[in-house]
Amino acid sequence: MTEISHKRYVIIVGGGNGARMNNPVPKQFMKLDGKPVIMHSINKFLETDPSIEIILVLPEDHVKFWEVMCAEYGFNKPVKIALSGETRFHSVKNGLQFVDDDNSVVGVHDAVRPLVTSKTILAAFKAAEMYGNAVPAVPINDSIRQIETTRSIAVDRSRYCATQTPQCFRTDILKKAYTQDYHYTYTDDAMVVEAMGEHIHLVDGNAENLKITGPKDLIIAEALMKADSPVFIHSKI
Amino acid sequence: MTEISHKRYVIIVGGGNGARMNNPVPKQFMKLDGKPVIMHSINKFLETDPSIEIILVLPEDHVKFWEVMCAEYGFNKPVKIALSGETRFHSVKNGLQFVDDDNSVVGVHDAVRPLVTSKTILAAFKAAEMYGNAVPAVPINDSIRQIETTRSIAVDRSRYCATQTPQCFRTDILKKAYTQDYHYTYTDDAMVVEAMGEHIHLVDGNAENLKITGPKDLIIAEALMKADSPVFIHSKI
Repeated sequence: MTEISHKRYVIIVGGGNGARMNNPVPKQFMKLDGKPVIMHSINKFLETDPSIEIILVLPEDHVKFWEVMCAEYGFNKPVKIALSGETRFHSVKNGLQFVDDDNSVVGVHDAVRPLVTSKTILAAFKAAEMYGNAVPAVPINDSIRQIETTRSIAVDRSRYCATQTPQCFRTDILKKAYTQDYHYTYTDDAMVVEAMGEHIHLVDGNAENLKITGPKDLIIAEALMKADSPVFIHSKI
Repeated sequence: MTEISHKRYVIIVGGGNGARMNNPVPKQFMKLDGKPVIMHSINKFLETDPSIEIILVLPEDHVKFWEVMCAEYGFNKPVKIALSGETRFHSVKNGLQFVDDDNSVVGVHDAVRPLVTSKTILAAFKAAEMYGNAVPAVPINDSIRQIETTRSIAVDRSRYCATQTPQCFRTDILKKAYTQDYHYTYTDDAMVVEAMGEHIHLVDGNAENLKITGPKDLIIAEALMKADSPVFIHSKI
């Protein structure tokens, strides 16, 4: 049996302004199966490891809204609130300030990925403890093409994978990575850590762990959540 | 107004054996919103262009099953049946034998993509008429990584796109491409045509145009099809 030897944190990034949802409610607060998306995400981590510390990063404008929602849904889980920055990079950096134990493992999770499984969460945290970092990934099912200046070319999709969250890191490594300057090409935390010269360790994600960025995704998430039959499949990458 | 000057065919490839569905019914025959998946796909082309000629490629074992289903659902659309080959490449090649007018445009569509929109279909056929070929594509939303022998590296996802069907071609070009030898790396028709030296022309696909390859996808397709609000978004690539 593997002993859990390091404290765990998860920074849940809920900084989006929901511009693509055609809805005044930011997407992380939209209701999914009767509850705001973000509460599903938080619950998934607490169900997986009740001792994990949750740091929720929100735009300043949404903090009051969050508190009202917590009251409305009787949601009283221990959650620390950090404030969003200009970009996702700056938001994660702000969240990291609440991680006070450097001898720990920290995950960074998109608030709008409520369908992550405990299996994916544990795989990422355990591998990060062992390898310094771990990123859940799934195969790409469609054919893909690389776009060049004047044309596009087919590439072998089996040589690519799509990454998800939680992306987990030894805290000292992630903190060091976030002392680097911001670069606009960073789309996830793995890229920030990689920029420092670290090799990224991949673990199997779950195919349903989609990012809710539009109305279509909310419909999909609702359907998967309500599905009678078990549809959660852990893809081998 | 653009005049339609070329006859149109579509080869609908329904050759899969449904091994991943844990279901004795091949996936293209599974019910979606009360009707087999494959009938939705065929209807979408006929609704878009009633004069299009449909060539359905099926494994020999499934032809009788298809006929029984047509009787059961009162489905009497004009459909020519070709037999599947050893791989998708060979199936398309068999379907092409039913395309008797070489001065035409032919689309190749996965039977298990019932959520293609008329807009995607028309965009592909019209562009193929103009450029010789056209492939619907959508942006990749997750961060992606390239897998190398001993590690993986982040790549810029904005430089990649995922391709869908129908992939459309001037018939003479596609027929010539399919005289080439089979290669196991071909995952779509664009790759076969590209192997001949042609540049591939991309058009906007629709994000919902997913390929049904497992139970999860059937649940997603059902939810999108039943959605009250319009969720069909044509992504700019």
